[in-house]
Amino acid sequence: MTSDVAVIAGAGQGLSASLARLLTKEGFRVVLAARNTGKLAPLVEETGALAVETDVSDPASVARLFEAADKAGSLALAVFNASGRTRGPIAELDPDAVKQALLVGAYGGFLVGQQAARRLLARGSGSILFTGATASLKGFPGSAGFAMPKFGLRGLAQSMARELSPKNIHVAHFIIDGQIEPPGQADEPDRPDRRLSPDAIVEAYLATHRQHRSAWSFEVELRPWVETF
Amino acid sequence: MTSDVAVIAGAGQGLSASLARLLTKEGFRVVLAARNTGKLAPLVEETGALAVETDVSDPASVARLFEAADKAGSLALAVFNASGRTRGPIAELDPDAVKQALLVGAYGGFLVGQQAARRLLARGSGSILFTGATASLKGFPGSAGFAMPKFGLRGLAQSMARELSPKNIHVAHFIIDGQIEPPGQADEPDRPDRRLSPDAIVEAYLATHRQHRSAWSFEVELRPWVETF
Amino acid sequence: MTSDVAVIAGAGQGLSASLARLLTKEGFRVVLAARNTGKLAPLVEETGALAVETDVSDPASVARLFEAADKAGSLALAVFNASGRTRGPIAELDPDAVKQALLVGAYGGFLVGQQAARRLLARGSGSILFTGATASLKGFPGSAGFAMPKFGLRGLAQSMARELSPKNIHVAHFIIDGQIEPPGQADEPDRPDRRLSPDAIVEAYLATHRQHRSAWSFEVELRPWVETF
Amino acid sequence: MTSDVAVIAGAGQGLSASLARLLTKEGFRVVLAARNTGKLAPLVEETGALAVETDVSDPASVARLFEAADKAGSLALAVFNASGRTRGPIAELDPDAVKQALLVGAYGGFLVGQQAARRLLARGSGSILFTGATASLKGFPGSAGFAMPKFGLRGLAQSMARELSPKNIHVAHFIIDGQIEPPGQADEPDRPDRRLSPDAIVEAYLATHRQHRSAWSFEVELRPWVETF
Repeated sequence: MTSDVAVIAGAGQGLSASLARLLTKEGFRVVLAARNTGKLAPLVEETGALAVETDVSDPASVARLFEAADKAGSLALAVFNASGRTRGPIAELDPDAVKQALLVGAYGGFLVGQQAARRLLARGSGSILFTGATASLKGFPGSAGFAMPKFGLRGLAQSMARELSPKNIHVAHFIIDGQIEPPGQADEPDRPDRRLSPDAIVEAYLATHRQHRSAWSFEVELRPWVETF
Repeated sequence: MTSDVAVIAGAGQGLSASLARLLTKEGFRVVLAARNTGKLAPLVEETGALAVETDVSDPASVARLFEAADKAGSLALAVFNASGRTRGPIAELDPDAVKQALLVGAYGGFLVGQQAARRLLARGSGSILFTGATASLKGFPGSAGFAMPKFGLRGLAQSMARELSPKNIHVAHFIIDGQIEPPGQADEPDRPDRRLSPDAIVEAYLATHRQHRSAWSFEVELRPWVETF
Repeated sequence: MTSDVAVIAGAGQGLSASLARLLTKEGFRVVLAARNTGKLAPLVEETGALAVETDVSDPASVARLFEAADKAGSLALAVFNASGRTRGPIAELDPDAVKQALLVGAYGGFLVGQQAARRLLARGSGSILFTGATASLKGFPGSAGFAMPKFGLRGLAQSMARELSPKNIHVAHFIIDGQIEPPGQADEPDRPDRRLSPDAIVEAYLATHRQHRSAWSFEVELRPWVETF
Repeated sequence: MTSDVAVIAGAGQGLSASLARLLTKEGFRVVLAARNTGKLAPLVEETGALAVETDVSDPASVARLFEAADKAGSLALAVFNASGRTRGPIAELDPDAVKQALLVGAYGGFLVGQQAARRLLARGSGSILFTGATASLKGFPGSAGFAMPKFGLRGLAQSMARELSPKNIHVAHFIIDGQIEPPGQADEPDRPDRRLSPDAIVEAYLATHRQHRSAWSFEVELRPWVETF
């Protein structure tokens, strides 16, 4: 009941699962938020995490998520991994899909960030980590439906970092600049580690949460050694 | 009926009015889109522009705007000036206001950009210009509700530029890095031109539309000489 | 004798020649600085410009250049086009060539910028324009000997802009993001304007010099419509 | 003789001393390069490091440094901390001091980076870390003599990273965005940790060297929690 709580919003396979395992091992009480918690059953069984069905683009749903987390202990860390996207030539993109991508990927970040900020301000410490992508920095052809939410999320993260850092709350934004290794998929023998290992990523997340406050990072870019950039 | 048409979305005082005047003088048929066209009456009378009541965050409304523009001639230029914003500490921002800012300032840019792109692709030429701000590049404390849409709009503009430039459609993004001179307000005698003159801004817009395609600008930053940056 | 003087440092074919022609036509007294003025004879004959043999990396030589310019009238505009570069894998680059590239491309920019700044500060107005490249923003493999001076020049330009803009001196930095059309070379019929036209570039230079001070640009990027970025 | 060697160029108090202590503790054989090795005597005594008198702007001197390091073992890590700077209004800067700043801060980085790259390419692994500053990203008024070398160093680091990363050599560039805590100076009680702790910085350096190659960082920014940015 007195554990430090970590909320992972946008939980699924890969990055979120690795993070849940690492944080559990490090003593956090982990709360997983996903649209469909059914898929999380094996991870919940493995880690003892709490899974809360959440629509990150819905204020009431996000409020309920954090109320559930409050019951598990004191929030120390919130990670926003949810991502909306739709792809295609600008003339052909479906407006509804673009709207949904924006509401999940950017507005959802705001809702989660706001709930986390309120709790960490009361606590006087803690971290809020946002997961970005290559598309956070560069809008590619056909990626308006991904660049728009990802750029927006970065603007949110910057604004929150500048407001909250002097209040002892560490806000950081990760640029995952490459493909994440899919779970259970073998690597190519002749080009090892060409995709980001989820375990390597989450090590950086934890290290960022634990950085000494005299030397905080805001933007952390991670890419495979063979990735062009 | 054979005029080049310019659509200005998010029309109001200041920048949009100066642009409407300049484009009219240069022979464009100007179409003004605003939530409330009543305020545009004097400008419509002065320039002969067509004013269309438009909610830029509503796909059907934006579609109607461009259908009205089609009747006026062939679209050559679309300018997106609409902007949503709400300010305040992250913990206190109103989620509905933030959502609205995002839908007007970023999603609205997508809807206008998409309709314009379809027409310019058919025409084989033309320009789409987006109006950004200091907050397009930097998220300040208390400005999450402005940085999020403005960053998002920039991501959209980049993506559209990379897709459409090789199709002879010029997409550009303006960073208005300072305060725009309010209409009818006198300048300070000892610090002249400390705010952006709308007439100076729109000269840059028109010059960008007319740039030779061997030397196109994507991002154009404009700031007063005395502005710190 | 009372003409406005424009100094173009690093004069040669292409960009500098187009600029000399345009500025002459616009009434400037043009002073061309080049390591070897012999090659400039036809341009000097055509434009009536003054050519001064100059090593931009030598303080005394740059001082003499500006003293010669002083005799022609009052400096209003200085353009730094000189560029040093050497290419190759990092392990194989010749240290002397890298040093030379840095002294010409960055230190030369400082020496020219300093002499120009002194005169424009006394005059109370004028512009200093620096020519950058894609390599000003991105260090590519094998381009350490070009990125290092170009990044350095950009840092210089930023610092000068922040210091001098509030003193009514306009400092701008151009990103020439593509290949400049070589003089006298025909274009490809099926992909017209794929390289930057020098005449299109210098139009942007002149327009920047003439921008209203309420809306100055610092960084101006120019690239062909078909250029990937 | 079979130890991994770490070369620290630009060794002095603070950052370099903390790094020497940490790397020694972690089993590296440390080689310190400084213009004046006399001041390093206490650190040499404490850590058993090798101190080599070096002018980082002189190719022969840097070559001798790395030859000395070769005798100590196999180079695994090189850190470039040397920095040249001179401050003042652009019109008043001393050209010789600016030249010296550029040769130490940027050209010195090239010379050290080149010698390190040759050895790490032969070894097939290792890291090269460059120390940047706020001035690496932003040229402030009066800081042309610091921004020019720091921007240049960043261009070098980017170019080397893009060339060497796919060869399994990790190149990273640190933005030290704030003041480093001077050795032996007490902190302000009411605003603790307002300056970067050297020990916190070097922890990030070591962690970067040890990052899994599927998730390498190139640019690492570190700033105190209370620093505005």
